[in-house]
Amino acid sequence: MNAGQPATVSLDTIASLAKRRGFVFPGSEIYGGLANTWDFGPLGAEVKRNIKNAWWEFFIQRRDDMVGLDGGILLHPRVWEASGHVEEFHDPLVDCRNCKSRFRADTLLEERLKISVEGLSLEDMSRAIQEHQLACPVCGRRDWTPVRQFNLMFRTFIGPVEEQSTRVYLRPETAQAIFVDFKQVLQTSRVKIPFGVGQIGKAFRNEITPGNFIFRLLEFEQMEIEYFIRPESWPETFEHWLAEMASFLNWIGLGADRIRMREHGPEELSHYSRRTVDFEYSFPFGWKELCGLAYRTDYDLRRHQEFSGEDLTYFDQERNERFIPHVVEPTMGVERLFLALLVDAYHEEPAVDVNGKPYTRVVLRFHPRIAPYKAAVLPLMRKPELVERARDVAAMLRQHFMVDYDETQSIGRRYRRQDEIGTPYCITIDYETLEDRAVTIRDRDTMEQVRVPISRLVEELGQRLAAS
Amino acid sequence: MNAGQPATVSLDTIASLAKRRGFVFPGSEIYGGLANTWDFGPLGAEVKRNIKNAWWEFFIQRRDDMVGLDGGILLHPRVWEASGHVEEFHDPLVDCRNCKSRFRADTLLEERLKISVEGLSLEDMSRAIQEHQLACPVCGRRDWTPVRQFNLMFRTFIGPVEEQSTRVYLRPETAQAIFVDFKQVLQTSRVKIPFGVGQIGKAFRNEITPGNFIFRLLEFEQMEIEYFIRPESWPETFEHWLAEMASFLNWIGLGADRIRMREHGPEELSHYSRRTVDFEYSFPFGWKELCGLAYRTDYDLRRHQEFSGEDLTYFDQERNERFIPHVVEPTMGVERLFLALLVDAYHEEPAVDVNGKPYTRVVLRFHPRIAPYKAAVLPLMRKPELVERARDVAAMLRQHFMVDYDETQSIGRRYRRQDEIGTPYCITIDYETLEDRAVTIRDRDTMEQVRVPISRLVEELGQRLAAS
Repeated sequence: MNAGQPATVSLDTIASLAKRRGFVFPGSEIYGGLANTWDFGPLGAEVKRNIKNAWWEFFIQRRDDMVGLDGGILLHPRVWEASGHVEEFHDPLVDCRNCKSRFRADTLLEERLKISVEGLSLEDMSRAIQEHQLACPVCGRRDWTPVRQFNLMFRTFIGPVEEQSTRVYLRPETAQAIFVDFKQVLQTSRVKIPFGVGQIGKAFRNEITPGNFIFRLLEFEQMEIEYFIRPESWPETFEHWLAEMASFLNWIGLGADRIRMREHGPEELSHYSRRTVDFEYSFPFGWKELCGLAYRTDYDLRRHQEFSGEDLTYFDQERNERFIPHVVEPTMGVERLFLALLVDAYHEEPAVDVNGKPYTRVVLRFHPRIAPYKAAVLPLMRKPELVERARDVAAMLRQHFMVDYDETQSIGRRYRRQDEIGTPYCITIDYETLEDRAVTIRDRDTMEQVRVPISRLVEELGQRLAAS
Repeated sequence: MNAGQPATVSLDTIASLAKRRGFVFPGSEIYGGLANTWDFGPLGAEVKRNIKNAWWEFFIQRRDDMVGLDGGILLHPRVWEASGHVEEFHDPLVDCRNCKSRFRADTLLEERLKISVEGLSLEDMSRAIQEHQLACPVCGRRDWTPVRQFNLMFRTFIGPVEEQSTRVYLRPETAQAIFVDFKQVLQTSRVKIPFGVGQIGKAFRNEITPGNFIFRLLEFEQMEIEYFIRPESWPETFEHWLAEMASFLNWIGLGADRIRMREHGPEELSHYSRRTVDFEYSFPFGWKELCGLAYRTDYDLRRHQEFSGEDLTYFDQERNERFIPHVVEPTMGVERLFLALLVDAYHEEPAVDVNGKPYTRVVLRFHPRIAPYKAAVLPLMRKPELVERARDVAAMLRQHFMVDYDETQSIGRRYRRQDEIGTPYCITIDYETLEDRAVTIRDRDTMEQVRVPISRLVEELGQRLAAS
């Protein structure tokens, strides 16, 4: 989809366009905001839906070895003991003894002291802070508590009185419901190894330093697959899923030139993983994790079998063999993909308007699968006869596609607005339309215009959108 | 979609089919379950997606006066003070002093004493319990605490230490983000009154008595619209949305014979509502609320204006008038619709199998929009040449539809399985297929079979599904 190299764009430009056009709003803004939370406006809600529907179509609908699942955000607290999250899912925190400010120790070390924290223990971090005489970024003093662990799971209580109630967590990842329900899926589907279970849903992490716009969030949506395999087949399964993930990123229009893979070092692997590869994207704030693939071995099923006492083995009929399946896990986050898609789509280019005046055209070159509106219907002028016909055309198209309608301001201004929100096709109704029952389709990327009869418009649009 | 009257079916039959076929599993079952939570299995996840996508298409995509939104589950705590939920969103609870069991006082009064609690104060309820000498259902003693209020919102904390952190709530309804973001939507869209904002997402209520399978849940998904209007137009807007809701229920295949409307009495109205009508469905446990329409006046925007100090008025250019819009709110819950759709679709009927043997056919007559699979591809026998051709056909169809593939057991058994999960069309590949490149399509409802060339199959299925 990208015509040449994508423009280098600042995060501010992206965030400001996103706010101005109704993609992303600061959360609870009328109350001064809340801890870097964000709401998705009319256009953002469409983009999120498009990402999720594309993922489901690509990974669940189109494959013969996948089924979906939709598990709860609130799971039994034992799930998170078994998964290792109660014990292992921490950030290292340190307090300034003078001003009581609290920081992530790893962030302080990396950003203030330029020390890599890979593989450092809590003691190592405490020592590094002492040795380098780190000053508190708030008050400037050098009096620190030791570095301690802080669990990232949000806690809440089921039941009326906290003391007598069940303490539960908001899930920090969607994956666990798939392991917890593994036996039920086996019993109720006709799945045979290798097969996968996919799920989309919210997850929550009590990050003390969320940031970079929608890159790191307290509340976000994951799209996760657990792909169950025989233990010995993990290396080729891993390669298969690396290719599938790259293929999906391309399918939704992300340019390969801004994506790279990065292998996790041994000291960097999560507690459950034997191999992890991140797909990194070249965000305005640097190469950062976009999505990832992990080989989780049989860690999760084995732990849940241990903690629950249930038999979570799989019986391979052909080989007459019983074993705990291993899993390879492709994980994507909706909001990170969203941010990468915005950055990737953003282009500025010199252009000439309908009156021959040069201007800088801002255009989001979204893939049609991702674009919030597939088309915009525009009466050339705000005259009753044109408006009426344009509304009819819009109503007809809305039976099939998400369609915008706009009769305000000059046609040039309206083209620019649609370019800026990434609408692939503008459909103009003019006085000729009243004679020939045809309309003009303007292509967002080429700006070419062609005349199409209204009777063929749904088909023409459908073909163009599918051909992209 | 319903051929005549729907069968009377017990909740147990529905729940057991739902579990056996992978629609709905008890949540965290391997750990003994969690407070009546449920997970949606492979087929349930598809039905939920279909309900949500149908809602979005019907209410957002197809209308010219609607936009979507996707706000956070975690909002600023002031939102819930302004909305009235901190003060008003309660259940009345009462404890047995002897055995310490806790109950909802209204449930005890209605179910044990057959007393209607409409309009009763906490004091009235305490008095009624004393006067009627209510015995504790657990220990039989008659020693009760006074009835007290218990807030239904789940609480959690943002930040590392609870005392110093922001106490936040998990949203008990999706509606509020729409009010909180009202100004941003006005500024970034070209919406003009009347217009609506729709949203789908999870909401959470700390119910102490969830139950009736997936009817009342701690965690559920809402599909809500706030439709903004001039104050004086509320009566006709209300009627419009009653009709639209009925029309949507019909569009997804719910039989009108099991739906009725019920007007809320004055003492029953929520704190924000001046008129509320419930759509009730005849569930196996009686007529209960399926979804509802409320006239919320300008209560929410006015309160948020007051609490935030922001100007939340709307300027009507044509009339040169500034005012706080009023709202009419159609609300639906995904899981309740799901349950009603299951009950409605369930049919048992006498039938004769492929060998001429009579049996009781269980069939879910889901509307194709709702059915988890649109078609199932079945090789007549498990022979390599049939299996290969059948897999090719399935792969072709998966580019367009959710499709099942099944090669296990006899063809009769496989038809029954597909009937029981509501698949509208079974496509059989037999030896003739190898000659004539055609397949048999079996219609779930009529059981009629027709022969269709593979080259026309996508088109034929598409037309049949769209025609329903």
